[in-house]
Amino acid sequence: MANSLSASATSAVAQESATVASPEQGRRRMELAFQSMPALQAVRKHLIKTQPFRGLRLAALVDITAETGNLLITLRDGGARVSAAGASSLTTQDDLIGCLAKDYGTAVFGQRGDTEEEQAKHLDKLLACRPQLVLDTNAGLTFRGLAKHPQALAELIGIAEDSVIGARRLRNAAKKGRLSCAAVAVAESKTRNLFDATHGVAQGIVNGILRATNTLLAGSAVVVAGYGWRGRGVAAYARGLGARVIVCETDPVKALQAVFDGNRVMSMNEAAAIGDVFITVTGTRHTISREHFDRFHNGAILANADATTPEIDTDALAGSSSGRRTVRMSVEEFILRDGRRIYLLGEGRAIQLVSGEGRPSSIQDLTLANQALCLEYLVKNRETLPKTVHSVPAEIDQQIALAKLGAMGIVLDRLTLEQEQYLATVTEPD
Amino acid sequence: MANSLSASATSAVAQESATVASPEQGRRRMELAFQSMPALQAVRKHLIKTQPFRGLRLAALVDITAETGNLLITLRDGGARVSAAGASSLTTQDDLIGCLAKDYGTAVFGQRGDTEEEQAKHLDKLLACRPQLVLDTNAGLTFRGLAKHPQALAELIGIAEDSVIGARRLRNAAKKGRLSCAAVAVAESKTRNLFDATHGVAQGIVNGILRATNTLLAGSAVVVAGYGWRGRGVAAYARGLGARVIVCETDPVKALQAVFDGNRVMSMNEAAAIGDVFITVTGTRHTISREHFDRFHNGAILANADATTPEIDTDALAGSSSGRRTVRMSVEEFILRDGRRIYLLGEGRAIQLVSGEGRPSSIQDLTLANQALCLEYLVKNRETLPKTVHSVPAEIDQQIALAKLGAMGIVLDRLTLEQEQYLATVTEPD
Amino acid sequence: MANSLSASATSAVAQESATVASPEQGRRRMELAFQSMPALQAVRKHLIKTQPFRGLRLAALVDITAETGNLLITLRDGGARVSAAGASSLTTQDDLIGCLAKDYGTAVFGQRGDTEEEQAKHLDKLLACRPQLVLDTNAGLTFRGLAKHPQALAELIGIAEDSVIGARRLRNAAKKGRLSCAAVAVAESKTRNLFDATHGVAQGIVNGILRATNTLLAGSAVVVAGYGWRGRGVAAYARGLGARVIVCETDPVKALQAVFDGNRVMSMNEAAAIGDVFITVTGTRHTISREHFDRFHNGAILANADATTPEIDTDALAGSSSGRRTVRMSVEEFILRDGRRIYLLGEGRAIQLVSGEGRPSSIQDLTLANQALCLEYLVKNRETLPKTVHSVPAEIDQQIALAKLGAMGIVLDRLTLEQEQYLATVTEPD
Amino acid sequence: MANSLSASATSAVAQESATVASPEQGRRRMELAFQSMPALQAVRKHLIKTQPFRGLRLAALVDITAETGNLLITLRDGGARVSAAGASSLTTQDDLIGCLAKDYGTAVFGQRGDTEEEQAKHLDKLLACRPQLVLDTNAGLTFRGLAKHPQALAELIGIAEDSVIGARRLRNAAKKGRLSCAAVAVAESKTRNLFDATHGVAQGIVNGILRATNTLLAGSAVVVAGYGWRGRGVAAYARGLGARVIVCETDPVKALQAVFDGNRVMSMNEAAAIGDVFITVTGTRHTISREHFDRFHNGAILANADATTPEIDTDALAGSSSGRRTVRMSVEEFILRDGRRIYLLGEGRAIQLVSGEGRPSSIQDLTLANQALCLEYLVKNRETLPKTVHSVPAEIDQQIALAKLGAMGIVLDRLTLEQEQYLATVTEPD
Repeated sequence: MANSLSASATSAVAQESATVASPEQGRRRMELAFQSMPALQAVRKHLIKTQPFRGLRLAALVDITAETGNLLITLRDGGARVSAAGASSLTTQDDLIGCLAKDYGTAVFGQRGDTEEEQAKHLDKLLACRPQLVLDTNAGLTFRGLAKHPQALAELIGIAEDSVIGARRLRNAAKKGRLSCAAVAVAESKTRNLFDATHGVAQGIVNGILRATNTLLAGSAVVVAGYGWRGRGVAAYARGLGARVIVCETDPVKALQAVFDGNRVMSMNEAAAIGDVFITVTGTRHTISREHFDRFHNGAILANADATTPEIDTDALAGSSSGRRTVRMSVEEFILRDGRRIYLLGEGRAIQLVSGEGRPSSIQDLTLANQALCLEYLVKNRETLPKTVHSVPAEIDQQIALAKLGAMGIVLDRLTLEQEQYLATVTEPD
Repeated sequence: MANSLSASATSAVAQESATVASPEQGRRRMELAFQSMPALQAVRKHLIKTQPFRGLRLAALVDITAETGNLLITLRDGGARVSAAGASSLTTQDDLIGCLAKDYGTAVFGQRGDTEEEQAKHLDKLLACRPQLVLDTNAGLTFRGLAKHPQALAELIGIAEDSVIGARRLRNAAKKGRLSCAAVAVAESKTRNLFDATHGVAQGIVNGILRATNTLLAGSAVVVAGYGWRGRGVAAYARGLGARVIVCETDPVKALQAVFDGNRVMSMNEAAAIGDVFITVTGTRHTISREHFDRFHNGAILANADATTPEIDTDALAGSSSGRRTVRMSVEEFILRDGRRIYLLGEGRAIQLVSGEGRPSSIQDLTLANQALCLEYLVKNRETLPKTVHSVPAEIDQQIALAKLGAMGIVLDRLTLEQEQYLATVTEPD
Repeated sequence: MANSLSASATSAVAQESATVASPEQGRRRMELAFQSMPALQAVRKHLIKTQPFRGLRLAALVDITAETGNLLITLRDGGARVSAAGASSLTTQDDLIGCLAKDYGTAVFGQRGDTEEEQAKHLDKLLACRPQLVLDTNAGLTFRGLAKHPQALAELIGIAEDSVIGARRLRNAAKKGRLSCAAVAVAESKTRNLFDATHGVAQGIVNGILRATNTLLAGSAVVVAGYGWRGRGVAAYARGLGARVIVCETDPVKALQAVFDGNRVMSMNEAAAIGDVFITVTGTRHTISREHFDRFHNGAILANADATTPEIDTDALAGSSSGRRTVRMSVEEFILRDGRRIYLLGEGRAIQLVSGEGRPSSIQDLTLANQALCLEYLVKNRETLPKTVHSVPAEIDQQIALAKLGAMGIVLDRLTLEQEQYLATVTEPD
Repeated sequence: MANSLSASATSAVAQESATVASPEQGRRRMELAFQSMPALQAVRKHLIKTQPFRGLRLAALVDITAETGNLLITLRDGGARVSAAGASSLTTQDDLIGCLAKDYGTAVFGQRGDTEEEQAKHLDKLLACRPQLVLDTNAGLTFRGLAKHPQALAELIGIAEDSVIGARRLRNAAKKGRLSCAAVAVAESKTRNLFDATHGVAQGIVNGILRATNTLLAGSAVVVAGYGWRGRGVAAYARGLGARVIVCETDPVKALQAVFDGNRVMSMNEAAAIGDVFITVTGTRHTISREHFDRFHNGAILANADATTPEIDTDALAGSSSGRRTVRMSVEEFILRDGRRIYLLGEGRAIQLVSGEGRPSSIQDLTLANQALCLEYLVKNRETLPKTVHSVPAEIDQQIALAKLGAMGIVLDRLTLEQEQYLATVTEPD
């Protein structure tokens, strides 16, 4: 059994308490994280042996954390020549930049708090390497390339895309014939959605909210807007901590699922008047907006949990308020004109990143192992894969799940020959 | 709000206590069930108005219950000329046969306890109608037609298939070019899997086991073999009633899901020595077999919950026993040679059907509404649909979920124009 | 590990399907139940050895079931001369009457369906035995004696009282100086309240409601009136099956507990308009009354779960209705004047008894073992115990819990000498 | 509805990030906390009006936090002349010391990090005030008085004791005739045990562990040692977050309760080999000791959650290790001689205080309101109360629960006259 401590230090709290971002500290954190990542450990062993990326130039646009640091090293150990840049200036961990360069010989561009312009320059540097493989987030690197440096992508073999939005963008590009290689939508893998995007994100959100507020969830009404993987996870966790959960959702199938899972379901307009804590994970903007402020009761707590979308209209909130002040770290009090006080967490940015530490290492493990294997898959099948966006092959999900189960000491039954014959027969009746 | 009583009477208990299977009783049960089926009510209104099946001959191989009775009437009201036969002699409810013929003018063949030969004759009668639409279970009617009466399927427009196995069989047939029309795999719809196959089946199983045994689940170790929709449902319900749940599963992704849902996961060989109650829903035969009997502790309870597969090797159990006797209705005690006593429920047949009443009317509602809309879809798109097995269109799932939510008085948010624009923009960055 | 099948057959369903109430059948059911009662098994062994009741006349007013049958035999085996009568004509199981007399030489008076007058005669017969020990329910036997045959209680050593109400009555009698011996309130024991009155009753209620209605609890709003042991149990079970639970409670501490356990809490007047299924376990009458009928939505299901109190005002319901009919076994439909249909289960009598089988044998085990040990305690301490109502000694609860844990194969840690010293020291600081 | 943010800042993290402990900051934190304390708000209003403590000298030994600060002000507003000292140098919040003196005119002795000698001096100063009322923790102030300054307690009217251990100590003293006044064991109140000691502590522990480790609880085996109020709470929360929970407990009734709540129960020796995360809340020392270290798997995480007892033998752990280092804030890695790594949180001190923020304000509210009302009760009944340790009167619990429910906008049913008569009649049958 591996340990399961996380090594992330993405939160403001942790970041501020880190006096010096030394490479030494980064190295220790990467090692600690790696101990919690048995699936990536197994993949690394496999890649070291098989060297599928030998000599290939790989550019990665990823959050620079202890966990992704281990992915980059794993890819390097599989033979790749790796360059990387941070996907978000909110999450870049500076101690890792130095460590990756110094200890592991991997070029990393960017640092925490970079401006958008600086960020764009980092992408350009990555593209200047003329990548053959791209590990992308929100398709940011790919689209920068398509827009500004099309020639830089001339030798591109494949793209592993980390996010749902990125996969949608790439599909749009493929439809228009703009995609010059195959891509894999890692965001759609089972090992990511069933685990990382559900349990990992949910615990990150709960942790972030408890840190920020120390509010008691038991006995409170928690409104979860959005009932996708993340919403389902955080709703289950809030119920598990004694909250009554209300779900807001625009998709009727997901809404019905929320009902049968034991939640109340209603419109945000109705929920606004009832909720004590609001958590948004819809993936669309301004899920909580001006019309809802009038309805909040005094003391309502608002948290957005989407890493890229501003789901709470914070400008409108400020505009509706007669005053605001920080009452706890990551908690800002807005005093509405009628005296009610509303508490906004982390300025409306992803609470699990601002006040928590994001998803635990042991669950990111699954997604990162997936990315490595999808890149291997793209290389192996470079000749045959259509230039579209592909789902993660079932075998990759299974391989990762097996590695994780193995680390937990779990051995599964296998179908007997008799059972396999039965299954074959039953579907072939004549 | 509709009521939510069920009208099924599939169980042995209910069946035996019904002294006379009168059409009058069947009619009352159909009416009671229909009150709990708001989605089918909405579909019926729609079909009465639009008459998509006007004049078409429709043959249905379905369990003949109060719920499916309402589906047949709905299809008739949509213009179809309906004939039907019971998919299983275990589930046919005789009072409905008479009622459907007498009160609703629908031909139904078969009765409870039919032999296989009689069953085959009923299929032949259905095929003699030269169906243009088929509502099938396990593809039984389709394959009987392909094998024995190919000319009877000459005018076939489409097939709505109810079961997972049936869908696999049809896909195999399509691959071999044997399918002369399009089919829809209703078993793969979201509204079926997320609700009927999870909550409906799970409650049916729990109900069946409690009725048969009145054993206390709290504090006991419940082993669930198979962690598909049904297994996930029944595992969650058993946990909800205070049991410690152990999951056996051969698919590593599902096994890992079971772990993160809070279950212990192990091989059946390990679980056999620990479990108090065993429930099999794997879909493959002899999940519990001779090698496990030695390991059961005294008093272990065995229940199969798959409607078509013999997942417990009952012959081997009998062979390993020195004696057997019925100790409660649907509970047979096997005395192993070393004196341990093992309790087999319902002779190893689907416990929710033998001792319970199957899935509640209010949840079958979703699946049956789905079948009606899929048949409409097949007719509407008869010119364009490829002759393969299709998934249920997302719109159908959404339409059904909306009808159900509406009956619950739930109103959802809609995306604002601004939000739709945002979603469009975010995926079209350039 | 013992088996855990129950042998009760209290329900109407089971009763009606039992064609003949043969002593042979009673004997088999008692043996089956005894297999699920390891605590009582351990107590029986102990009593056989120690014979604390040697020669004492014991009168028992208890529900005559397979489980209490085993208690009576256990007391007899401990030396007592046992007479018994059924505490409720609703629960008496006729096959046991014969069996107890024929096979076990225990006099039992009464049969299912006795009138009140007949019931009174049975009590008089019991009293005519001049009991030295009384096992009472609702203090019925004791108060009959006090009122009509005071001389019959002249040699009374002690009373073990099974119910909460009975304990209150005995306390009132003790305050007035009318109690001539010590009594023990078995209803207040931990092993009864934490297990039998919580899990046992809760599963019995769920089982009873599912049998009667086959309604789906997931996605429905279940209103639980009363948040004592039973209410807490059934609320937790309903949540565990996917329901949204609303609690009505007059005690503020219990109400707050319901809030923090994740339930909504409101008055019955508010809940009446929201609930799908109503379950009353308040212990007071007419918890659901005329004022609430106007507010129920169409299809509401009403179930009382208190064995002695009419918590639903069924007369008022009938008076508010324009019609009524039985739509399923134990389900009566009332049509209110505005057309809404309300479903009353089991005529408003305890649903777990009418439609279910009451509490499982394996959990009654704890309470029945408790009664035996409390009677032993009364005999042993006859010289010293004050003539009041006593709580169950902690040692008895612990002894029973240990026997149960032992049957489950569970071994506990013991405090080390060092730890005991620490605990002693920490509370003796100077 | 009040807000529900907490204002505590007991954790090392929070404390270190507070650059200056200004009275101004203390005042703001007290105000923020008070907003989350509706029960104490109600009590304060009541005491301001009734002035039960007018002129009485009150000495308080309490954790000096924003919440207890509000209690002290409340008592002062009820007329008392309040002096206070911090009960633990681990929890004293220096910004409040200044604030209570400067803004509220309340003398407070002590500061964070005081030595034992300094602590003793503060007690002596409190006693020098010759208190008439004592608010005590662990009976520390009372026993200091009894031992060193008996004359200082000459005018003592009553003691409200906060802790379980303190109540035991006072009971021992009363038995020996050393108690010169009545005391109330606030620790035994329902509003404390059912809420503060269960939900408050449980969330504090979860929060503390997640902050320290960011380990994923879902899919992990969490061992909870001790199944009292706190253990039950944290076990439920861990299950709610997806963990498999194992309980170790020496009391058989509590152990059986753990079984029926769905946990596995075993000895620590067995659990040591299985657990991923260990949480001790037994109240006795060295629950985890040398014999268990050999059995831990690599990566095991150890957390003690008892505020006063060293439940993990940290010296033995150090002695068994070949090395140790801090790998995250509040996480120390011990490398056992065979290479396994064990992670000890917060040096084995109460994890919810070291790494979390203790119990949320909104739940401490109940206990602190209780203390104020118990002091009032002691004063009001000074003439009649026996000089022993009393339980909290049921009326006080109910009054507090009502205030809390009122703040949540919850209105309860009241018994009707008819129902009260029924309840009276049913227990007075003749």
